[in-house]
Order: sequence, then C-alpha cells, then structure tokens
Amino acid sequence: MKKIKVALLGAGTVGSQVARILLEDAVSLGQRIGADIELIGIAVRDVTSSRDWNAPASLYTTDAESLIDAADVVIELTGGIEPARTRILRALNAGKSVVSGNKALLAQHGAELQAAAKASGAQLSYEAAVAGAIPILRPLRDSLAGDQIQRVLGIMNGTTNYILDQMDTTGAQFSDALAQAQELGYAEADPTADVEGLDAAAKAAIVASLAFHSEFTLADVHCEGISAITAEDVQAAALDGYVIKLLAICERQGEGINIRVSPTLVPREHPLASVHDAYNAVFVQARDAGELMFYGPGAGGAPTASAVLGDFVSLARRMVLGGSGVPESTYAGLCAVGMDEVVTRFAIGLRVEDKLGVLANVSRIFAEHGVSLQAVRQVKDRSGDSAVIRLVTHRASDISVRRTMAVVDSLESVREIISVVAVEGE
Amino acid sequence: MKKIKVALLGAGTVGSQVARILLEDAVSLGQRIGADIELIGIAVRDVTSSRDWNAPASLYTTDAESLIDAADVVIELTGGIEPARTRILRALNAGKSVVSGNKALLAQHGAELQAAAKASGAQLSYEAAVAGAIPILRPLRDSLAGDQIQRVLGIMNGTTNYILDQMDTTGAQFSDALAQAQELGYAEADPTADVEGLDAAAKAAIVASLAFHSEFTLADVHCEGISAITAEDVQAAALDGYVIKLLAICERQGEGINIRVSPTLVPREHPLASVHDAYNAVFVQARDAGELMFYGPGAGGAPTASAVLGDFVSLARRMVLGGSGVPESTYAGLCAVGMDEVVTRFAIGLRVEDKLGVLANVSRIFAEHGVSLQAVRQVKDRSGDSAVIRLVTHRASDISVRRTMAVVDSLESVREIISVVAVEGE
Repeated sequence: MKKIKVALLGAGTVGSQVARILLEDAVSLGQRIGADIELIGIAVRDVTSSRDWNAPASLYTTDAESLIDAADVVIELTGGIEPARTRILRALNAGKSVVSGNKALLAQHGAELQAAAKASGAQLSYEAAVAGAIPILRPLRDSLAGDQIQRVLGIMNGTTNYILDQMDTTGAQFSDALAQAQELGYAEADPTADVEGLDAAAKAAIVASLAFHSEFTLADVHCEGISAITAEDVQAAALDGYVIKLLAICERQGEGINIRVSPTLVPREHPLASVHDAYNAVFVQARDAGELMFYGPGAGGAPTASAVLGDFVSLARRMVLGGSGVPESTYAGLCAVGMDEVVTRFAIGLRVEDKLGVLANVSRIFAEHGVSLQAVRQVKDRSGDSAVIRLVTHRASDISVRRTMAVVDSLESVREIISVVAVEGE
Repeated sequence: MKKIKVALLGAGTVGSQVARILLEDAVSLGQRIGADIELIGIAVRDVTSSRDWNAPASLYTTDAESLIDAADVVIELTGGIEPARTRILRALNAGKSVVSGNKALLAQHGAELQAAAKASGAQLSYEAAVAGAIPILRPLRDSLAGDQIQRVLGIMNGTTNYILDQMDTTGAQFSDALAQAQELGYAEADPTADVEGLDAAAKAAIVASLAFHSEFTLADVHCEGISAITAEDVQAAALDGYVIKLLAICERQGEGINIRVSPTLVPREHPLASVHDAYNAVFVQARDAGELMFYGPGAGGAPTASAVLGDFVSLARRMVLGGSGVPESTYAGLCAVGMDEVVTRFAIGLRVEDKLGVLANVSRIFAEHGVSLQAVRQVKDRSGDSAVIRLVTHRASDISVRRTMAVVDSLESVREIISVVAVEGE
C-alpha cells in the first residue's frame, strides 16, 4: 500500500483539530484514500506553547522547511502572507500538493500559487479559506463549471453576522453587540478585520475568481464595514420588512465584474435573512441552475478542519491514481469594475429640520438626478426639533445616488445623512 | 488542441437543454476544459418527434450503440433501467467516461456501473440524479470526505414538497393540491412515483451510499408516501408549531445505516421548514462540519442540465490531464438496518369516544410500553360525539411505538388512529 506523508504547518485552533483528526482517524482516512497516511510533523513557532489539543511532543518542530521537504502533502494553516507564501511555493515547486486555509494569501497571491501548482502538476486546494465548513469553492469550481454564474451574494463573515443578528433580535447598539461577540469568542480583541469587512473582502476575491473564471485580488474589492450601523438603522430596516446583513457581492456588471462588501438590506423573506448567529451562507444565481444556497458554520476549529480534511482526502485520492491537478480556469479574463456603474436600490435615512417643504425639496433633488423613489416616509425624531426622512429608491446607479446625496447634504434643512445602504435580494 | 466527442442519449426536458447548451456554449465550455468539444449525435427513439428545443436534424439518430462507439464521453439522460444500463456499461467498459442523471438506474445498479468504471479507469458522474441543480453528491463525496457524516435529512422530491407546501399555506386537501401540481406541470398524470415516495427513495439510496462509504440500493429504503396526509393533519401540525415535509433520512443506527422516506413533522424554525414550492434542500449533520444545508431547484430542464454540464466539464478536464476516475469509496461496508431500532419522536392523532377516562387509559398504555409522552392534548371533534387526542412522544423506538399503537387500536373507546408521524429536526 502506498504511503502519503503529511506535513502540517500551524497548530492554532484549526491546525490542532486537523492534527487530532489526522492521528485519530488515520486508518479510516487511509481507507477512503487507498493509501496509508502519516502525519510526519507539525511546524510551529514555539514547540513549548500550550495548544487546544496536544499531539505527541516529538511531532512539533520549528524547522518548517525540512518538514516540507520530507512530505508528500503540505497542509498550511498558519495564516498571513509570509512565511506562508514562501513555504507553499517551496512545496508546489517541488510537485507536492498543498491544502491551505489562508484567505489573505489566496486573495493576494492566488495567481502566483496557482501558476506554481500548474507548472509542477501539483494540486492546490483551499476550501477552508471561504465560509469554514461550507462546501462552496468546489461547487463553484466543479459543480457549476458548465453554467454561467451571474451573481453571488454571501454572508461570509460570522463575527459581523453575529453582531448584526444581535442588533436585530435584541435592539442592541453596535458597540454592545460587539462586546458580546468578543466575550463569546466570536470577535477578536482587535475586531477591525471583521467589522470593517476586510475578512469578507478577501473571501469575495477568491469566490469571484472561481465563479467568473478570472483573476481577482483583494485590491479589486470595494469594501465597507458595519461599524457605522446603528440600532436605529436596524430598527428602521425592520419597520420596512428588511434585515441588515454584511453581504459580499460578486456580480457581472457590463463587461466586467463588480466585487463589493457592504452592509445591505435584505428582505425578511429572503433565505439570507434567516441566517442567524455566526452562521455563513452563500447564495448563488446562475443562468441555468437558478438560485442555490449553501449554509453552515463559517468558522470554528472542527468545522474548518472538516473542510481542510475534505480537500486533503480528495487530493490524496488523486495522488494515488496519478494525473496532475486541475488548474483553475481563468480563460474569461474579466476585469474588476468599480462602484460607479453598480445598479441597485438604496435605503436612505436623513435627519432634517421639522418644517414644511423639506420632504418636497429632497424628493425634487432625487428626481433631478434621475433617481426615482419607491417609498418616502417622514417620522418625528425623538430629539424634538428635527424629523427623520426614510427613502427607498428604485434601481439606480451608485454614482447617481452619490451625486444626489452630495446635493442633499448641502441643503441647509438637512442636518445629517444618517445612512445610505444598498437593498438586495428582491 | 485536443478534441472531445460527446454522445447524448435522450432528448427529453433535460436532454434538450443539455444539447442546446453544448451547441450554444461550445466555445466557452471548451475554454474551461482546455479542449474542443463536439456534440456528435443525440440518440432518440424517434427522430421525428417534436422536442422542447431542436438541434440540427442531422444530429438525431436511433442508433445509440454506434454513437457511443464513436464518442469519448457519453451523457445518458433517457431514464429507466434498460436500455440505459446496457448502454452505460458499453461506454464504461470501453473506457469512455459517462455522465448520467438516471436515479432509478443508479439506485439499483450503481455498484455494477461503478465496478465497470473502476475496471476501465473511466469516470462516472451523476450529480443530476439527486436534487436537480443542487450540488450535493460532489460535496458529500469530496468536500466532506474527511469528516464523518452522521445524518442526512433531505427534501428530495419537488412534487411532494409543492403539494405539502400548498396544503400548509392554503389549507387545501391532498387531492386538490395534487390536482394543482398536475396543472402546473409539477406532478405527472400518474403521480405514484412522486407521492408514494419512490422517487425520493431512489435518491436516498444514492445519497446514503456516498455519505456512508457503503453500497445501498432502493431495496434498502423504507418508504412511505404522503397520499394519506390530510388537511387536518397539516393543521394539527401547524397548531403545534410544525410543518409536514416528506423527508428522506439517512442516518447511523447502531452499527448500520437506516434509510427511510416518510412524512415528517419539522419545527417551523428549522431551515428545512422554509423550503417552499417545488424547491429541494439537503440538510447534513457531520461530526466536525456541524450542520450544513444545500438549497435550490430540485428539477426542471435548465437546472438539471446545469448539473449535467458541471459533471461533464469536470470529467473532461480530467480527461485532458490524464489520470483515471476516482472510484467511489465503499470501504466502510455498512449494512442497511430496518425500522425497528429507529429512535425518534412521534406525533400521533387518535379519534376517540368523548367520555371520561379515555385520555388516562391511552396514556397508561404508552407508559406500559415504555413510551413517554411529551405533550397530550384533547380537542373536541367537529363531528360532535367524538374527541381527537393529539400526542407527542419523547424519543422512542419505532417498534415500541408500533406495539403501543396496536394495543391502543384495540381499545373500544378508540375509533380511529388518524396518523402516526415522526418528528425530526429538534
């Protein structure tokens, strides 16, 4: 029986679980693959650190390079750009297949890694980089390979979904919901990457590349976080039958692809609206398949380890049979397009002077810019001498709405633009 | 550039769409694959029949065998056991890879076809056989290949989901909802295969084989349909916060796997409860991944064609690179186990005489059989002189509940057992 030697880089939350399963389930994993598998070592920065789960001490090493050189397959779960990039390239260049969960690296240097894999015939898999345990990359890459994907809407960050869900269900302010997420371990001490949408943006770049057979990087993603969302925004949305979600959206826009992450109003009856807590979901619209949704835990040690091991078993089966890895198709070569031409609906909140004619004046400015309104609602503000206007537009381009808002903002009777949020899923 | 010659068997609803896309998208499909693709012919019973979409007349032929012999890849969309089985074996034995959407054939002769594929190194893919456009087989086979699946709960038949959803939302009786489904083309003139659960049962056998790395056939599936479900059952379920779905369930049961299709109460807040119309969804519980759900259109020409073409592109990419198909892993060799030991909760409806002591008597019989009750509710029946008792049990084995019901049925004060339905998803 053939033997496959596995090197694991990293022993954090996910790495520890992968090590545990590789050791505990070695026999059954080997049976599924048709080869004996052996975890030959775990590269860490400090062999004495305490871990979620402890492998035999002899497996830990600080010498990642020697470990890679001795292995047949490398599983990279360290995160960050370097030294992960150099190490993965070392493996791929030597024809060793790699499983990675490193979304930051894939979103910035994916093309380079894939070129290295293609050149040596090695396989490169990274299902764990997007939406934890949810199989989404393989379905996009293989199952939908004969279809034309039009649009992907994803809740790809569990932390922000937890925060927004709490705000929606309990009426909490952003800061309180964030504090709670931190207490539960859903958010890190420095939550910037999550709440400002950067984590979701990296995943969006990866998803867009696969969905549209092109190469996109993090720099192609327009990114807006949720830290400006208030309890009042959430309540106003609820009144109109919407829930606010941080959506990653990848869609065809003219001849190119627009990729953006932003707080978005989703109708209550849309499947994405019922994704609660820290769950993730990816909603795909395809020309032939129609509307599909994939739902599950978007993070966590064991769920993410499941995705890593699925990739590992799949590529190990291929190694046993021979034949090189299937390189990613980038034949379409589509470009990223900016926000100007993005057409969607917008929900807008304004704080204005509570006097006659303001609503008419604001409405006139929208009309002058060719932005037609679907709903306008004026409510008395609690503070007394001002009123709040809530508007929902028909479909309009992002740039026309931005131009409208610049003029609205200059009106003396408009005290504050409370929010401008896209509406999707209708 | 390499050329891949494709033979299509069948030109029905799905076959016509596959032919159309293969011809219209030949260039972009070829770019994704890295080879030119050519549809060399479409085998049909009668070349003069009218079709949903017409390919050039020269492509139609009644000589399937010659077509197969001239092709590199065969796409079988005829349905039924023969001649599909013989033709697929002819292709596989000659080392030609096959895409099939034939659930009846796969559920009965899957092992034989897979053995033929393995022997010649050909690939055999059949994503379209289960849940239309929803990628479920590939995720089970590859993405979850490193995990241990505990349970699959699926709405795998669109016709019955449409009927039950109508009954739930409009209060319609089964026969009216069925008539409506037939009018809309969701149900066939003879709806037996759908409403009696046979279609879902074939899919359940296929799913269970992949999920549990074993070989199961249609004969291993316990199957119960929805034709006995009444509007009253649906209303009673709604009162208690449940919706009735026809679920295909594949789960570990002791040392074996129980596979069953039956009407089942699902709590309103469960993700499967919000699967409406003719949509399908598959809910997977895995040891590490946790709870996943896959949702989408379960039937229809274009959606099913999307699944067929995804399989085709994937296996054609492999053909271009070389290397044989990955045979299905059946290492676990688990057996199917019957219903006796299945443990779940049950919702039971009884029509009884409206007099003192009946409820106490019935409750005592449950207790004597070790079946403990979670809820008991007696309601006056509309017909006047009888009452209806609705019970929900705690978890109990199927056989103990069946034994209990036999005794309950023999009571003079019990006029009718209205329904005994399993409760899942709690």
